[in-house]
Amino acid sequence: MKIYGDLISGNCYKVKLLCNILNIGHEWIDMDIMAGDARTEDFLEKNPNGKIPLLELEDGRFLAESNAILFNLAYGSELLPIDIFLKSKLLEWLFFEQYSHEPYIAVRRTIKKYQGMPAERQAEFDAREAGGSKALDIMEKHLGQNKYIVGEALSIGDISLYGYSHVADEAGYDLNKYPAIQAWINRVQNIPGYIPMQ
Amino acid sequence: MKIYGDLISGNCYKVKLLCNILNIGHEWIDMDIMAGDARTEDFLEKNPNGKIPLLELEDGRFLAESNAILFNLAYGSELLPIDIFLKSKLLEWLFFEQYSHEPYIAVRRTIKKYQGMPAERQAEFDAREAGGSKALDIMEKHLGQNKYIVGEALSIGDISLYGYSHVADEAGYDLNKYPAIQAWINRVQNIPGYIPMQ
Repeated sequence: MKIYGDLISGNCYKVKLLCNILNIGHEWIDMDIMAGDARTEDFLEKNPNGKIPLLELEDGRFLAESNAILFNLAYGSELLPIDIFLKSKLLEWLFFEQYSHEPYIAVRRTIKKYQGMPAERQAEFDAREAGGSKALDIMEKHLGQNKYIVGEALSIGDISLYGYSHVADEAGYDLNKYPAIQAWINRVQNIPGYIPMQ
Repeated sequence: MKIYGDLISGNCYKVKLLCNILNIGHEWIDMDIMAGDARTEDFLEKNPNGKIPLLELEDGRFLAESNAILFNLAYGSELLPIDIFLKSKLLEWLFFEQYSHEPYIAVRRTIKKYQGMPAERQAEFDAREAGGSKALDIMEKHLGQNKYIVGEALSIGDISLYGYSHVADEAGYDLNKYPAIQAWINRVQNIPGYIPMQ
């Protein structure tokens, strides 16, 4: 099994973190997103959407989208609930992460940390502030009442949301304003097999 | 079972379409998105993210995110593949739909059709053109080689992507440029239980 990824990306780090927690052997193929490695002709044959992470199975089949990869790799483990409603609720949070969280927090982090806040993206950076604050508010409320994202135990919902939440300060958010998120971040960091992002 | 939705939204229509195909009895609670029905205090208690569709089970539990609702309602039916890789691949397409398709095609459709293309959103409308074309190109290539989104049969992947793809012309895209998507649209429209969007 091969995983194409770049650890500056929270989407890639999620997959690496899951593999470490579940002890899933794999070959990590280091990509350089900023250099355009995911948009070469060769890579677009593997994933026409030009995105990483990308999983390549032994038989040559490919699977894209970080949260779909988490679902695949966690299948049969305690990190994926068996109950149908809990599994659906987990998916609700994974879609929340990709639609209402990542486009704000991850995109702002890229602009601020990796592009050095270029003037031509300042307006976009500002416009994306509110969405990230709303996502963090929703998480804060939920984690004030629940130890984990779904049910009573750690799942790939936590791993997915941890990816960009724990580096939200790099996107211009102040995590000190979110004590329940901070306590949850500490819980995730104490999981056996935890590895930091970089 | 109650479903809160507004049929001008493709995200809500997907759920209605699935219920009709699978003959799932439900009470449809009509919401008016444009009037802000999803952002009232009362509704935010049901879904803190202020979005529809929203599923309310008999026992009072809620499930948000259109694709998570499709997953939940299709569980155990032929519209959700049993094979783990196919199920993961289906999720890949559902995440593609929410991240790489909906933010372009659905958002442009709202600006054009429901907001009447206001001058202050023209720049955003233009900026979101390329993402939608890319998404349709990826679908066109895939559907040129495959009859359905995943595997050899109809699944909730088709229902999900059909939601906004079949009205992409209302978002300023020319579906005549996508013959494989058009043939697939015809296939979906011939499913027993099919109902049009409005």
